[in-house]
Amino acid sequence: MKVGIFGTGDVGRALGNGFIALGHDVMMGSRKAGGDKAKAWVAEAGAKASEGTFADAARFGELAVIATLGTATEEVLKQAGATNLKGKILWDATNPLDFSGGMPPRLAITGYDSLGERVQKAVPEAHVVKVFNTVGNALMFKPELKGGPPTMFIAGNDEGAKVRTKQLLTDFGWETSDIGGIEGSRYLEAMCLTWVLHGINSGGWLHAFKLLSR
Amino acid sequence: MKVGIFGTGDVGRALGNGFIALGHDVMMGSRKAGGDKAKAWVAEAGAKASEGTFADAARFGELAVIATLGTATEEVLKQAGATNLKGKILWDATNPLDFSGGMPPRLAITGYDSLGERVQKAVPEAHVVKVFNTVGNALMFKPELKGGPPTMFIAGNDEGAKVRTKQLLTDFGWETSDIGGIEGSRYLEAMCLTWVLHGINSGGWLHAFKLLSR
Repeated sequence: MKVGIFGTGDVGRALGNGFIALGHDVMMGSRKAGGDKAKAWVAEAGAKASEGTFADAARFGELAVIATLGTATEEVLKQAGATNLKGKILWDATNPLDFSGGMPPRLAITGYDSLGERVQKAVPEAHVVKVFNTVGNALMFKPELKGGPPTMFIAGNDEGAKVRTKQLLTDFGWETSDIGGIEGSRYLEAMCLTWVLHGINSGGWLHAFKLLSR
Repeated sequence: MKVGIFGTGDVGRALGNGFIALGHDVMMGSRKAGGDKAKAWVAEAGAKASEGTFADAARFGELAVIATLGTATEEVLKQAGATNLKGKILWDATNPLDFSGGMPPRLAITGYDSLGERVQKAVPEAHVVKVFNTVGNALMFKPELKGGPPTMFIAGNDEGAKVRTKQLLTDFGWETSDIGGIEGSRYLEAMCLTWVLHGINSGGWLHAFKLLSR
């Protein structure tokens, strides 16, 4: 399938490389087309990779991924264009992290709200799925962990989009736990902080959640 | 060791039974001594079990556990008495769940605050450790899960209290992830909701988190 990714940072590239390894076509979107980071990624990633503006990537993708800093998320979606995302699956891998007080960060959005919910409001006709926000980019694609595969927690309002997401997560090497509607992002964004704090306290970043059952 | 438990509900009894199975002495605290629920538990739990008021249990325990409904937590600590808990480990297994809007519940405390932090403020000279709030009572003691043991996430300000808690968690059949100071309760209380929402969406309650690493 065709995938548009917003954000050329570590997360965007990790997911983009994963989709390409699985045989999908990926367009990486940036503020301006032809930027150095995007061009370097295309050169490395090969024939299935391309780059353009956020709007180009939104038009290109049957599925789009937002993988920007939390602070940039809403502005990037404006540039991508809600109409370009209409009826499409939009993966939201962002976290509203506030680093203004130093480390550890805290959540920039609290209360009965979340960045996932704001993304869904910004693109009301896209099918937003919160996903890939509870693990670091080093483990996003086919993570090799003792006792794995790990579990990706997802939230979203559209059942079809979550079914497709679950299939793709299997391809990416993950089990899936669907915790319901997009408002579950409140808890998944908090879970990112548990992941971060474990990293700070253990001194390592190669960990991921799994949900065990009987 | 001597353990005082506040709350005769499912969580208090599950943890009390666990401590007794490990050879510890447990006093179950209630609003009034001699209540039916507490007496029934003592009769079942045997010679190492006793019951009394919250203050009795606080005085009795070298370690105390608060296992009440979130809404009752602060009032129960008043009755237990901060002085009775001075210098002791206090496990906080509560969650600030708000059921006023029906199911699923939402967090009653949001923003840069948590019930764990409020517990620590209510008993400033106790060593509060947030623990056992991210799993249901059926799995608290020696959980048998595929791919186990699961991981208990803890947060607290006193290193010694967390070292002792980690030893006890090993006895209870758990691995431990220490995510830092008591303000980490913000994220662990949110994680309880992930646990609950997975239960609602999967139709089962026998699941627990594990943290995988390489």
